[in-house]
Amino acid sequence: NIIRNHIPLKIYEVPTGTKVFDWEVPKEWNIRDAFIADESGNKIVDFKKNNLHVVGYSVPRDEWLPLSKLQEHLHSLPEQPDAIPYVNSYYQENWGFCIEHSKRARLKDGNYHIFIDSELKNGHLTYGEYIIPGQTNKEVFLSTYICHPSMVNDNLSGPAITTFLARWIVSKSRKYTYRIIFIPETIGSMIYLSKNLDIMRKNMLAGFNITCVGDDGPYSFLPTRNGNTLADKIALNVLKFKHPEFIKYSYLDRGSDERQYCSPGIDLPVVSVMRSKYAAYPEYHTSLDNLSIISPESLDGSYDVLKDCLELIENNYQYHAVYLGEPQLGKRGLYPHLSTSSSWVSVMDTLNFLAYADGVNDLADISNIINVPVWKLYPLAAKLQTAGLIR
Amino acid sequence: NIIRNHIPLKIYEVPTGTKVFDWEVPKEWNIRDAFIADESGNKIVDFKKNNLHVVGYSVPRDEWLPLSKLQEHLHSLPEQPDAIPYVNSYYQENWGFCIEHSKRARLKDGNYHIFIDSELKNGHLTYGEYIIPGQTNKEVFLSTYICHPSMVNDNLSGPAITTFLARWIVSKSRKYTYRIIFIPETIGSMIYLSKNLDIMRKNMLAGFNITCVGDDGPYSFLPTRNGNTLADKIALNVLKFKHPEFIKYSYLDRGSDERQYCSPGIDLPVVSVMRSKYAAYPEYHTSLDNLSIISPESLDGSYDVLKDCLELIENNYQYHAVYLGEPQLGKRGLYPHLSTSSSWVSVMDTLNFLAYADGVNDLADISNIINVPVWKLYPLAAKLQTAGLIR
Amino acid sequence: NIIRNHIPLKIYEVPTGTKVFDWEVPKEWNIRDAFIADESGNKIVDFKKNNLHVVGYSVPRDEWLPLSKLQEHLHSLPEQPDAIPYVNSYYQENWGFCIEHSKRARLKDGNYHIFIDSELKNGHLTYGEYIIPGQTNKEVFLSTYICHPSMVNDNLSGPAITTFLARWIVSKSRKYTYRIIFIPETIGSMIYLSKNLDIMRKNMLAGFNITCVGDDGPYSFLPTRNGNTLADKIALNVLKFKHPEFIKYSYLDRGSDERQYCSPGIDLPVVSVMRSKYAAYPEYHTSLDNLSIISPESLDGSYDVLKDCLELIENNYQYHAVYLGEPQLGKRGLYPHLSTSSSWVSVMDTLNFLAYADGVNDLADISNIINVPVWKLYPLAAKLQTAGLIR
Repeated sequence: NIIRNHIPLKIYEVPTGTKVFDWEVPKEWNIRDAFIADESGNKIVDFKKNNLHVVGYSVPRDEWLPLSKLQEHLHSLPEQPDAIPYVNSYYQENWGFCIEHSKRARLKDGNYHIFIDSELKNGHLTYGEYIIPGQTNKEVFLSTYICHPSMVNDNLSGPAITTFLARWIVSKSRKYTYRIIFIPETIGSMIYLSKNLDIMRKNMLAGFNITCVGDDGPYSFLPTRNGNTLADKIALNVLKFKHPEFIKYSYLDRGSDERQYCSPGIDLPVVSVMRSKYAAYPEYHTSLDNLSIISPESLDGSYDVLKDCLELIENNYQYHAVYLGEPQLGKRGLYPHLSTSSSWVSVMDTLNFLAYADGVNDLADISNIINVPVWKLYPLAAKLQTAGLIR
Repeated sequence: NIIRNHIPLKIYEVPTGTKVFDWEVPKEWNIRDAFIADESGNKIVDFKKNNLHVVGYSVPRDEWLPLSKLQEHLHSLPEQPDAIPYVNSYYQENWGFCIEHSKRARLKDGNYHIFIDSELKNGHLTYGEYIIPGQTNKEVFLSTYICHPSMVNDNLSGPAITTFLARWIVSKSRKYTYRIIFIPETIGSMIYLSKNLDIMRKNMLAGFNITCVGDDGPYSFLPTRNGNTLADKIALNVLKFKHPEFIKYSYLDRGSDERQYCSPGIDLPVVSVMRSKYAAYPEYHTSLDNLSIISPESLDGSYDVLKDCLELIENNYQYHAVYLGEPQLGKRGLYPHLSTSSSWVSVMDTLNFLAYADGVNDLADISNIINVPVWKLYPLAAKLQTAGLIR
Repeated sequence: NIIRNHIPLKIYEVPTGTKVFDWEVPKEWNIRDAFIADESGNKIVDFKKNNLHVVGYSVPRDEWLPLSKLQEHLHSLPEQPDAIPYVNSYYQENWGFCIEHSKRARLKDGNYHIFIDSELKNGHLTYGEYIIPGQTNKEVFLSTYICHPSMVNDNLSGPAITTFLARWIVSKSRKYTYRIIFIPETIGSMIYLSKNLDIMRKNMLAGFNITCVGDDGPYSFLPTRNGNTLADKIALNVLKFKHPEFIKYSYLDRGSDERQYCSPGIDLPVVSVMRSKYAAYPEYHTSLDNLSIISPESLDGSYDVLKDCLELIENNYQYHAVYLGEPQLGKRGLYPHLSTSSSWVSVMDTLNFLAYADGVNDLADISNIINVPVWKLYPLAAKLQTAGLIR
């Protein structure tokens, strides 16, 4: 609903029990309160202070347990003693508390009051969709997830960037249709696929899973399953020129919704362009993945890279040189008049562009071959088109 | 006949003079005795002590020669003074003796009695064949040679391992038919090809030339001519995981029956998996290639690698994931119930297998892509098949 | 006309104004005299001493100018103070003088007499063509340019070598037709293409742009646009074995007539084999590119490499082994009779040749695969053909 303040999201509800591929939509879990209190009534952990303290999907509980029994239901991280881990138990009924390891180590023998005021009942899975029509029904796809409570780099950054990308897309004239979704990870992408697979397979040119785009780690790329789609080519081209130090992961390192989008028989061209990849930074899936590890500058950098990818898709024409042989740049003001060896170098980008504008290479190919970033080629292509030298 | 004590070899005889491709079966050579004796009657070299002392295919001889004339018919190795070289003269009538260089250096002037009681006559070339039928007529091929007298790594080890592989194959249920041959090198493989080429070309999936499998040198691989057959893929996969330090030779380094099996117009998928390759260890083709350079452990290691290759061929299915998207491992007991970052890693092999089970990749491909040895994938595939997740 | 003393060049004249692709033939420029004189009448620069002193295509001029105004029309090289740069202004009417920077620095204030006795008028562009017919109409193409006044490595060396290559071609029996042209660079190659493109596209097997073949720099190779033609394969094979230290440039480094021959829609298989590439040596396009930087030995080396390329094209057969399996070299005198490990190596080239003579690989492929230079394979192929072992 917050996102709806920014873009006209269409919200869908899918009932508990709905079958999807090998899965079904689980019960809806809601929680009002939870704590562990000692014999004096002091709350040791308190859901109201941090919602990570309760294992996701914990069943209701109200009982006294000795410390030894309680320990079986505690989760903590010895190597990050001040972090609360983020733990779920989606598909098996269970309960537990997540606690700083330093605090856990100080727990004294005795009895503890366990209280979980939660509810597991038939309900709905909720997701949002925003389709921005273009001049053709060929589609670009953006997917982001909305299911990790309190997580910032590995969650909140994704919907935030995606929302503002959507606003930018709407503001521009565009050739392609944009399909943008906000879903719970895994089960959400499967539900969406099960309802839209035919049209997505038919129309999708390239897609991006948007996650982990807020911290200041190095840019990271996660390819499609076979690494050979337009989405791979576009993202690699943009990253190579804009952030050449980026980390290129393997599909074996995956862990988000590309697991569904690229699976056998689905095979959609969806890649991820990230900052620090999920599971590759110490704060991942703990209370330390909070607002302190992201910054406006880092978010802005990710936003720019993704915008550049979309811009390249929109402009990725297969140019074709109009003239046989090199055209006469001079009479069009595109060439210095005195042929000295130094002036020759300054027009090589133009001549190289024309040399590879063979109607087969697209703009990303040409950029890769002649080693010039696409943002220098856009104005060049426009100038050459105006001059009647390419079509 | 010794091999026949272990497996029911069918023995074929091919008469002298039989034409085969560009060759013909030579005369049969038999030898009873041979020596060089000095003027006092001391036998300097004696065939009865080591059958390498006579050049293979030497014609009969009984005469006295001065040392200077005898020298023209002596073969020795200055750099290995205690080794008797192994020398043949198959296709030109000739005679000679092979002698330790240290002994040769001590020969005194004078006359020597040369005696060779041999016989070159029309006879037969002999080879053995053992065909073990499977559920289909698609074939796996094993070829080993039986023609180097007294040589151990570069000969005896091959038929020994092949015999025991045959016994293991028979003991197992199998999908494919196994064609196993024991032949003289070169002329033997050509004869066999000339009689069986059509069926081999039609049915052979992969073949192995089995030689030099007894010493404790590094594992060695010799590819097919273009290096791109199923046999190459299978052997490279097994060696990569089992003995990653193995030496990968080029087809230019060949020297055994792959020279025939992989020649233009024949082009069968036959590779060699060896320990120290022929011509690549100092004892090669000398009296030093004897039982002292092999060991039960080394033989066993080679046997295991070849068995692993055959097992992979039998199990090299193109698996196909049944479900679109990732299946729900949890409800089948294939997934830990709490999603923490450490537990996630432990199921990645399973998920990676499923991600590449697209009906195109075979098991060896999947193993190479996800970097997991096939012997870990067999039980995984069985488990996933039982669970109804792949077919 | 000097070249005509050596080969029967057919000379073509193309009138000013003739349209060709995006260009048209410019006016003809002739010059009789030019100088800059000081107030005392001393000639500071004199066209009659060095024709580089006048910017090519300078319009007529006879006037007095103060030094400050004259400076706007002077060209010099601060980093090469004793060199006169070579400068042109083909497609815009202009005038100027080229001068040693050391001399320019010494010019005193005052007035200077500027005199250029030149003429720009309708005339002709001139080029020469020599077609040497072969047994088939399939063609090999040689192109060299004749337009840089006084330049030696980057000009004179090209027509010189090409002339003598033509004489050598005529002297030999040949399978292919040779199309050899002497043209002004850029506009000349475009004119030639515009008149002959259909036949060139239909018949050309491989072509060479011959330039910069006189100095003693390292051999240099400039590929076709996509680097995958027969011309690329031939030149790379010859250079790899003959001058393994050669520099392999990218098509992005181009700067001669391959700019036309390899452009989109023309796509002829034309490469350049050079010594120091244009723009890659300090004397390039200055008065220092004179006879002192070339030598008979360097010219001879380039001549040999190009001759080797032509010879390989003529002999680049797809050989096919006649026999299945290895043929019996021994009975043909092609194999040593005693099989020792040392003699085995000496016939490996023969056996490797036969192993890859599969009717698909051509001679250059075989040379690359078995790592033997083609000049060792010619006599081997002849011997094997005589012996009936290959066709």
